Amino acid sequence: MKVYFVEDWLDGLYLGVQIESVVYTTRTKFQELAIFDTVEFGRMLTLDNVIQVTEVDEYIYHECIAHVPLLTHPDPKRVLLIGGGDGGTLREITRHQNIESITMVDIDEGVIEASKKYLPGFNQGFYDPRLNLVIQDGSVFVSETEERFDVIIIDSTDPEGPGEVLFTTEFYQSLRRLLTPSGIMCAQTESPLVMTQTVKDIYHRIADVFPITKIFNVPMACYPGGWWCFTCGSLGPDPEKPLREPEESWNLKFYSPEVHEKVFILGPKLKRDLGIRE
Amino acid sequence: MKVYFVEDWLDGLYLGVQIESVVYTTRTKFQELAIFDTVEFGRMLTLDNVIQVTEVDEYIYHECIAHVPLLTHPDPKRVLLIGGGDGGTLREITRHQNIESITMVDIDEGVIEASKKYLPGFNQGFYDPRLNLVIQDGSVFVSETEERFDVIIIDSTDPEGPGEVLFTTEFYQSLRRLLTPSGIMCAQTESPLVMTQTVKDIYHRIADVFPITKIFNVPMACYPGGWWCFTCGSLGPDPEKPLREPEESWNLKFYSPEVHEKVFILGPKLKRDLGIRE
Repeated sequence: MKVYFVEDWLDGLYLGVQIESVVYTTRTKFQELAIFDTVEFGRMLTLDNVIQVTEVDEYIYHECIAHVPLLTHPDPKRVLLIGGGDGGTLREITRHQNIESITMVDIDEGVIEASKKYLPGFNQGFYDPRLNLVIQDGSVFVSETEERFDVIIIDSTDPEGPGEVLFTTEFYQSLRRLLTPSGIMCAQTESPLVMTQTVKDIYHRIADVFPITKIFNVPMACYPGGWWCFTCGSLGPDPEKPLREPEESWNLKFYSPEVHEKVFILGPKLKRDLGIRE
Repeated sequence: MKVYFVEDWLDGLYLGVQIESVVYTTRTKFQELAIFDTVEFGRMLTLDNVIQVTEVDEYIYHECIAHVPLLTHPDPKRVLLIGGGDGGTLREITRHQNIESITMVDIDEGVIEASKKYLPGFNQGFYDPRLNLVIQDGSVFVSETEERFDVIIIDSTDPEGPGEVLFTTEFYQSLRRLLTPSGIMCAQTESPLVMTQTVKDIYHRIADVFPITKIFNVPMACYPGGWWCFTCGSLGPDPEKPLREPEESWNLKFYSPEVHEKVFILGPKLKRDLGIRE
């Protein structure tokens, strides 16, 4: 018997992932959540039928979204993570011993509970004593809090459904207000190849708010087009230039200082298509 | 009505591509060939139900497989292309005005004929006066010819069916014999993420034959895992270091000197998995 999870990547493109077993399904307060063991991608988490993370390539996404901003900030002490309920980004943040406090804001406690139970490769960060976990809409949190942060990471779902408010100009203005003077933020910002207009819109919204805005891109087999990008908005540090190296003991799989600089290099067509401001 | 071309990427992973129309199908002497117009990928060529090229991402593959070796060789005059029947790689090779002769060896005339008729974005190279087109098994050609080449490019299908002989140690030994003293060869060598063992085997076969062997990798939405790699074997030039820049008039979409150096940077896990020799 062959059973497949099928995701409509785009209107005219879908991916079929053969599953070995359904590990867990639930309807959380916000989304339909499922965890599968798959033939090619290992354990896999989906929300509203969209693949969020798979064991086979999660390290690429999580290492980059965390270490790119954290290693370009001169000395991050206070970090804010919005989204990232699966725990992968939190796991990478907690590797940094110099960080003093990590505030994580996720709208959906159901994702966190499922990750704690069924994603052993992802969830160790939830037990870090520096973590302050807040279950709240990230856009509400950033508009109300009086706290300030050195680094802010936005590990959201796509700009539809619960994640939509995390891609607005108002949201990016709030992030800027929450950052300390040398602060930097990094957000996942969709597929440069097959969602070019979306990426362009987001990039310019961020570039209208932050003095320094840069896009980086990585391969991601489980996301539409197999190619994903992130956008950094910075008040001071150059997002392309790491100031420190990761510790050997972190045993990173994708990130290295050379990879850090490489992922910011974009081809001429992509620069033109996105209207990159030099 | 929704009609999809479906490719089994791996045992447990498939891609569905919605088609707008079937442009052409035929059974060539070697393969089942089809050309579609698709919703997301533009015009698309398949052989034996495997996607070979799509309009949306072909420039990434073709620019890199051609310009990486051609711009690292100090002065390529004679070039050999094996495979590449769709014409995309040939189009990129013909941009180089300093090249004096281009020998293209493809086993399957049917692919070339179809490309000339139905792939207007790809086929202009077939009309270049420097082209010497040979319809022959590439492995037979390289074992018999007395000609010598400065750059050899292997734009083959996967290592199954007609393409299999183009991934053997004997074949790489023939390539080395055919290269002039500063010669360099570049071959497409499958997906580093989801065919890691295949990539590793090919890399070590090439590294056993050539004094300098280096892998580079690019995003490719239409291939399994969305991430593809190429391996260069060199008798002299460092494949990572371009000696010349592309002309502005080429209007390249993906390749640039910065991209050239970036695509050779591999993450620590991939280096370990492939057993890269430093």
